[in-house]
Amino acid sequence: MTDASAAPGRIAYLGPPGTFTEQAAVLFAGDNARSEFVPYSSITASAEAVAHSEADVAVVPFENSLAGAVGETHDLIIHQLDLYIRDELVIPIEHCLIVAPGADISDIQVIYSHPQALGQCQRYLNRRFPDARTEATLSTAQAVARAVELGDHVAAIAPRRAAQLHEAQIIEFGIEDDHRNATRFVVLDHEDHEPTGDDRSTILFSTANRPGALLRVLQHFADADINLTRIESRPARERLGTYLFLIDCDGHRTDPALANALEHMEPDLERLRIIGSYPKAPRP
Amino acid sequence: MTDASAAPGRIAYLGPPGTFTEQAAVLFAGDNARSEFVPYSSITASAEAVAHSEADVAVVPFENSLAGAVGETHDLIIHQLDLYIRDELVIPIEHCLIVAPGADISDIQVIYSHPQALGQCQRYLNRRFPDARTEATLSTAQAVARAVELGDHVAAIAPRRAAQLHEAQIIEFGIEDDHRNATRFVVLDHEDHEPTGDDRSTILFSTANRPGALLRVLQHFADADINLTRIESRPARERLGTYLFLIDCDGHRTDPALANALEHMEPDLERLRIIGSYPKAPRP
Repeated sequence: MTDASAAPGRIAYLGPPGTFTEQAAVLFAGDNARSEFVPYSSITASAEAVAHSEADVAVVPFENSLAGAVGETHDLIIHQLDLYIRDELVIPIEHCLIVAPGADISDIQVIYSHPQALGQCQRYLNRRFPDARTEATLSTAQAVARAVELGDHVAAIAPRRAAQLHEAQIIEFGIEDDHRNATRFVVLDHEDHEPTGDDRSTILFSTANRPGALLRVLQHFADADINLTRIESRPARERLGTYLFLIDCDGHRTDPALANALEHMEPDLERLRIIGSYPKAPRP
Repeated sequence: MTDASAAPGRIAYLGPPGTFTEQAAVLFAGDNARSEFVPYSSITASAEAVAHSEADVAVVPFENSLAGAVGETHDLIIHQLDLYIRDELVIPIEHCLIVAPGADISDIQVIYSHPQALGQCQRYLNRRFPDARTEATLSTAQAVARAVELGDHVAAIAPRRAAQLHEAQIIEFGIEDDHRNATRFVVLDHEDHEPTGDDRSTILFSTANRPGALLRVLQHFADADINLTRIESRPARERLGTYLFLIDCDGHRTDPALANALEHMEPDLERLRIIGSYPKAPRP
């Protein structure tokens, strides 16, 4: 059990600097001056850094209010690494229109960004730049670098921190079509969090291959009056049509109600793994 | 209700030619000589072509046995377009190592592909080319074009059809790490399929915001002895933590058992939409 007040030193995250994941890592570190932020080239690489003890924790995106589960994070938690969730953070996703400093913005012809960001600003782009062409890049940071390099008549869509880091100019804030866009990040560690009195738990299970097994598992949660806040099915990787379930519920795994419910549902389960109990993050 | 034997003329799909989606479109068309395959630059654009009557149907990826739900397809079915699923197809995903014709393959230094394909062949790459660098491209087709352009000491990972279309050379077949990798595609149309006696239905619902509502909905399926083959939660796009559910179950929506069960669960539902009933595809 880790002491929440002793925030870890080396924090791995999906780089480059300027990503929303870096924002979440900074929020997690809080006022801890000895934190060091280490960018990795993929979500998986940042989590593997923890597994191999190159980093103390990894901050990774888990689900988005518009796009749903982040597949890569779910797959590595479920299938690849034996890590726990020890914290969660919720970050509002804000996109900005960014250009090179002093660029001529009278006639924007090309707009660069990651396909996901382009998709999240599509209505804005159709309204404001009906004649501009969009070009996909591999990251929003790369899009800003391209805009800075090309200069006039070119723009990028990226978070405001990417503009700061590339010394580019933000010409419009909050251009995402849906302002309810938020991403939930989780902090991966070798241990989860001690009880705080207002916790959430993430639990992975597969049901015994009998009709109604999932139903009986959910019934155990309902009987114990435990609120489920999320249920996600993921491929079991056996064959198409077999699934694992990842559930978020209220409470800490050491709470008697949750501990008892888990014990009672065991006969209906084939596999059970508690991914972690951690304090609930405030939601925007 | 569409007659299955009268396969539609214009079939929209995610291009460029050589993608797995094109393979699924060709399988769907079968022997229908008057079929025309129209590539689009995104899943959404191919489905919109049907909504705007530019195409008769769209073939789109729906879920993968390793990666799970295809978010873009789920989002457009749930939030954007009023289309039905009228058919499903299951395609095994096979990756190949591809080079320019006559290229020197003695010392492969760079391997191009889409990040998803690179991820699906990672163990193969580590074993066979431990010293090669991998470079991400926006599509597997682009990776093959790059390999053909650069020639010696360069390779791409892509489906075999991409090699044929670019007149490139396949030097190894079936290099994916997990041979159980298959993708389920669905065919979107303005109507679903008439009953065949061996059907599946896809149903979208949200539960009334009362404790245990999801549990009661699943109980209605169990009481009617209807087998659920998949349950997927998707963001409701209201705020983080609110979800819609997409369920696949055995049977056609006109079967009395399913029609009755749906009628009985209505008081527990806030929203109900039948996305379609269609013949079950053989699974590999």
